[in-house]
Amino acid sequence: MAYPQTAFSYTTFSSPSFISRRRDVVYSNTLQYQLEVLKSTGRYDAFKLAWHPSYNDKPDVWPVPNHLFWDSDVAKWIEGACYFLQREENAELDGAVKDLVAMIRSAQQPDGYLNIHFTVVEPEKRFTNLRDLHELYNAGHLIEAALAHSQCHNSDLLMEPILKYVDLLCKTFGPESEQKHGYPGHPEIELALLRLHEKTKNPKHLALAEYFINERGNPTGQDGRHYYDVEGEARGDREHERPMYYPKSRSYWYQQAHEPIVDQQTIEGHSVRAMYLLTAVSDLVRVDGGSGMKSESRTKALHRLWKNMTEKKMYLTGGIGSQKQWEGFGIDYFLPSGTDEGGCYAETCAAIGVMMLAERLLQIDLDGKYADIMELCFYNAVMTGMAINGKQFTYVNQLASTDTDLSRRAEWFTCACCPPNVTRLLGYIGGYLWSFKSDESDKSVVVDVHMYSSATLSIPLGDSVVKIEQKSNWPWEGKIEFSVSSPPEVSTTIRLRIPGWATTWQISPELPDFHVAKGYLTLTPEWLKANSSFQLNIPLTPRFISPHPYTNQNIVALARGPLVYCVEDFDNAWVDDHFKRLVLDPACVVSEKSISASEMKESYIGLTAHNAASLMMANEDLAPHMPLGSIAQKQHPSIEELHFIPYALRDNRGGKGHMRVGIRRKQ
Amino acid sequence: MAYPQTAFSYTTFSSPSFISRRRDVVYSNTLQYQLEVLKSTGRYDAFKLAWHPSYNDKPDVWPVPNHLFWDSDVAKWIEGACYFLQREENAELDGAVKDLVAMIRSAQQPDGYLNIHFTVVEPEKRFTNLRDLHELYNAGHLIEAALAHSQCHNSDLLMEPILKYVDLLCKTFGPESEQKHGYPGHPEIELALLRLHEKTKNPKHLALAEYFINERGNPTGQDGRHYYDVEGEARGDREHERPMYYPKSRSYWYQQAHEPIVDQQTIEGHSVRAMYLLTAVSDLVRVDGGSGMKSESRTKALHRLWKNMTEKKMYLTGGIGSQKQWEGFGIDYFLPSGTDEGGCYAETCAAIGVMMLAERLLQIDLDGKYADIMELCFYNAVMTGMAINGKQFTYVNQLASTDTDLSRRAEWFTCACCPPNVTRLLGYIGGYLWSFKSDESDKSVVVDVHMYSSATLSIPLGDSVVKIEQKSNWPWEGKIEFSVSSPPEVSTTIRLRIPGWATTWQISPELPDFHVAKGYLTLTPEWLKANSSFQLNIPLTPRFISPHPYTNQNIVALARGPLVYCVEDFDNAWVDDHFKRLVLDPACVVSEKSISASEMKESYIGLTAHNAASLMMANEDLAPHMPLGSIAQKQHPSIEELHFIPYALRDNRGGKGHMRVGIRRKQ
Repeated sequence: MAYPQTAFSYTTFSSPSFISRRRDVVYSNTLQYQLEVLKSTGRYDAFKLAWHPSYNDKPDVWPVPNHLFWDSDVAKWIEGACYFLQREENAELDGAVKDLVAMIRSAQQPDGYLNIHFTVVEPEKRFTNLRDLHELYNAGHLIEAALAHSQCHNSDLLMEPILKYVDLLCKTFGPESEQKHGYPGHPEIELALLRLHEKTKNPKHLALAEYFINERGNPTGQDGRHYYDVEGEARGDREHERPMYYPKSRSYWYQQAHEPIVDQQTIEGHSVRAMYLLTAVSDLVRVDGGSGMKSESRTKALHRLWKNMTEKKMYLTGGIGSQKQWEGFGIDYFLPSGTDEGGCYAETCAAIGVMMLAERLLQIDLDGKYADIMELCFYNAVMTGMAINGKQFTYVNQLASTDTDLSRRAEWFTCACCPPNVTRLLGYIGGYLWSFKSDESDKSVVVDVHMYSSATLSIPLGDSVVKIEQKSNWPWEGKIEFSVSSPPEVSTTIRLRIPGWATTWQISPELPDFHVAKGYLTLTPEWLKANSSFQLNIPLTPRFISPHPYTNQNIVALARGPLVYCVEDFDNAWVDDHFKRLVLDPACVVSEKSISASEMKESYIGLTAHNAASLMMANEDLAPHMPLGSIAQKQHPSIEELHFIPYALRDNRGGKGHMRVGIRRKQ
Repeated sequence: MAYPQTAFSYTTFSSPSFISRRRDVVYSNTLQYQLEVLKSTGRYDAFKLAWHPSYNDKPDVWPVPNHLFWDSDVAKWIEGACYFLQREENAELDGAVKDLVAMIRSAQQPDGYLNIHFTVVEPEKRFTNLRDLHELYNAGHLIEAALAHSQCHNSDLLMEPILKYVDLLCKTFGPESEQKHGYPGHPEIELALLRLHEKTKNPKHLALAEYFINERGNPTGQDGRHYYDVEGEARGDREHERPMYYPKSRSYWYQQAHEPIVDQQTIEGHSVRAMYLLTAVSDLVRVDGGSGMKSESRTKALHRLWKNMTEKKMYLTGGIGSQKQWEGFGIDYFLPSGTDEGGCYAETCAAIGVMMLAERLLQIDLDGKYADIMELCFYNAVMTGMAINGKQFTYVNQLASTDTDLSRRAEWFTCACCPPNVTRLLGYIGGYLWSFKSDESDKSVVVDVHMYSSATLSIPLGDSVVKIEQKSNWPWEGKIEFSVSSPPEVSTTIRLRIPGWATTWQISPELPDFHVAKGYLTLTPEWLKANSSFQLNIPLTPRFISPHPYTNQNIVALARGPLVYCVEDFDNAWVDDHFKRLVLDPACVVSEKSISASEMKESYIGLTAHNAASLMMANEDLAPHMPLGSIAQKQHPSIEELHFIPYALRDNRGGKGHMRVGIRRKQ
């Protein structure tokens, strides 16, 4: 069973591309920068288990101590660093990894327990608040770090203490009467345990993951009651005492724990948690081979929740989560562009989570709709999360700025989940480009190409290797050159994704006949033997897109290929209202231009709408009733040209921080 | 200083009109019906101070016991009954009032205290939770009941215990160190005390009202801290223990107590509380004569908050409050039509509160913009609150139904503020039609006519009487016949409101020259002497209106005169989706037709849009990106005619409960 975190090893980024340039920035800037931040904030040394002054701070989000995620910050950095170290040696990074691993080893308690907060600050409160306190979430990230470390260094130095800790968890949680019937408020350990099981084949690791997934939302799991009710009562919580992220008491949907996963009809709550959880559910379906009653109901739930999310709760950029209070999903079609319309969250980590889930679903069922969303998220909601310099990040990715929420990146966050998540994603991004199956017995290889870039996939098959190289300037240009090197005895099939947004495409040499099934074009072994080099061309032209009308977002946005564009004040200096009054007539001419600016470190295609823009003039005195015709749309003298830049590249050139993706559509 | 609750005595409803017919229903059905409900639910006997089984019920909205408002339910019914009894004797109603007054008298404690819950259920908790527990709110309604009772019966039987209770309150609350520096979580007593002071001239009554208003939101009012912090701590509240209506801890803006009123920049929180509070602030400005530093800052705050509310936080129907969680205002321009778009509350009581505030502001500054809103609220957000039969009511008045919130009235509510509020409003509605000033010394009378109907205003002036009669079929017809009977020595001026929505109007006999100042046309004593009968004609034609584009409600609605219309499934039987897919082209022909249906007890003007309606067809599979042109608008074969009924008259004829005011506008 393939995971992108392991499968990426078969991919090399041979020639420059958008992706390789982003990876280069992470390797040369981000990893070092984040290491410095880990050190300066106290995270780096935290596994030494000394007291840190910040442990006294009042939590920003009660009851969650600000430092509660430090274990995971360190773990995710180790994981990301190891992915890059697997490709290229680097003494500084390597030294830091060694150092951190040693500290983690030293922090382990005699019984295997391994957590900073619950060793240093509140040792008596171990496993007493699974709902809010991220103890098992941290454990999950430690497992993922150990997997990456072990894969990179072929060493058990980190895996050893982690396995010991997992043993303790396997003893602590489970269905037996002396075990706790709980599960993490923030899923993560489930997918980590399933990946761990892939490596260890230890049935206890699979069993614990499955237990956490099955038990979640059980209304009678602990002593005939909901586990979170029982643990809350044991803590002395009062009925109406609740964290800020709970709009009501017992808002367990925040944690996707309001009912068993297989019963959930709509996607709810904290969006990162939802994505991590469903990723693990997908993995469980794969482990089970997709058959049987359990797999069937899990698969139904996955499809139902995916459909609800992508059709009714996803932004134009692939971002998810409109509600700041619980960092998650609102009701169907509630997708305001920004704070002044009622919210927009679209957390970077959540979009990374969508990619994780989409990749798993693609492996269950090869359908371009998953790959379309995976690529949409990558090039927009995720890539906007890191500055061109690799040293500034976003947490929230609104589609329109306001005075209170400018379009700006930050150097770090108290809750710093997003920056190292981008790092580790780019570390194993090769695993998202394509997936493959090889069978040595009948000498066959099937490669499904999901995303285009410049990269080489080398698939070992017995003593030989099948190599597939793609070269392109994607996402700026739609021409992709393929070359396949396959020993004559190997039967190689390639399935190429034809994006859902593509209205046309060409392949040369021409195919005698072709069939696109669920978004993938199959190239047969016969054709490939005759055509070891070929070119796919998916013309990239600007197109206008809109959200569903039920969103009440009467807007249009520009897209080109997988990229969604935005307007920024840098290119449109007249703006003083975050483009709120701006009206766009989509029946306009849009031109494109390749732009090279030194600060962007990336030549990009800018778009310009000509004579399409006007400003709305509404007489507020007439409210609450605006008579028909009282709202004028005046051509502003200076906006003959309206300039667009990819959303992923916003806020890299200075400016006032005024930005908007979807522009009011001309009536 | 005039209050509509007293000034209405000068108005009689001589001939039939929309208003008189609504009043007749209240007199013949509603008062008796509500009396029965008071009896069957236990409210009627509650002042006997016996235990009622429902006192054991768990609160629907913690920490507010469900029966906490019973005092006010009884008080408001007494108040409403007395307004009607002032016009017409009725042995049954009169007997009930006598009975209730006797019970209230008997419920008073030796020290003057008078409250059901805090005498029967939690006597030890008197005045320990002003923030949440409506103790002073109930007191306010008792004062208003006593004023109505005293005015109707010329008796002190109710006033006597109430004055004793107010004495206790004056001792308990105030600036002295031994007094509590608190103020009610739900304003009401402030406006009641100001009306009481108008009658008693007791400076303590004015002082307590002013104290409550000034102290509100003081960050250092009690021992250098916010009063609500101090009383919460004294109760043993925990920091993160909070009522459902508090999205965060210390959401004191819910009670308009986050900062002093004069500093508040936007209208926030629970909308009924906000209206009752600002009404009292307006009254205080009037008491002070409108001059001086205090009045100036209060007047500025009133204008600022009124402007914010009407321009950015008011629905097409005059309804206010989009947020169910705190029954109040959302951010600027957040005005979804219904639950499936993120909420719509528009509580009946809140619209009654807008009318109260508008009437007060009109007396401070005669400006038609206040009267326009007052009339808008009355004919839409308020009148929709009671069924034609006078026995069913609304609490929430959404602009679009959904499956979870059908367009339906209910027979009663646990928190039953709205039904008796409509009753008492219609009791003194005569006080809203016009206001007047008379001066016996120079024999002058000035009458400002705010709303049109059929009614007679009789103004005593020394030994004579000035009589002004208006006759019209408003709001169905725009022709109003006036006749003025004024002794020759009296100089009578009339100012007639020309509604803001009127694009034209005529008066006959013609005026030689005229001047409309801030929405009022002045008829001089000279002209009136020559024209004791005249006719004003304001043509009523259907017009399309929209909310401000920043609301993201790309909708059009039909209005005619002061009435806003809606579509219902009763007239448009094809609907199966609450008219959500319906698209309307406002460039269509709209015809009107007088409709008499026996169940409506009111001939009304129905509107029909011809060949204007189509249904939107969107392919959800394409989400989150809908390509331009992917949304079709198909003419439904059966909707050549789209029928509209006034929103006030919705849900009187059966049907499925599908209803919508604002319809998606054709792109």
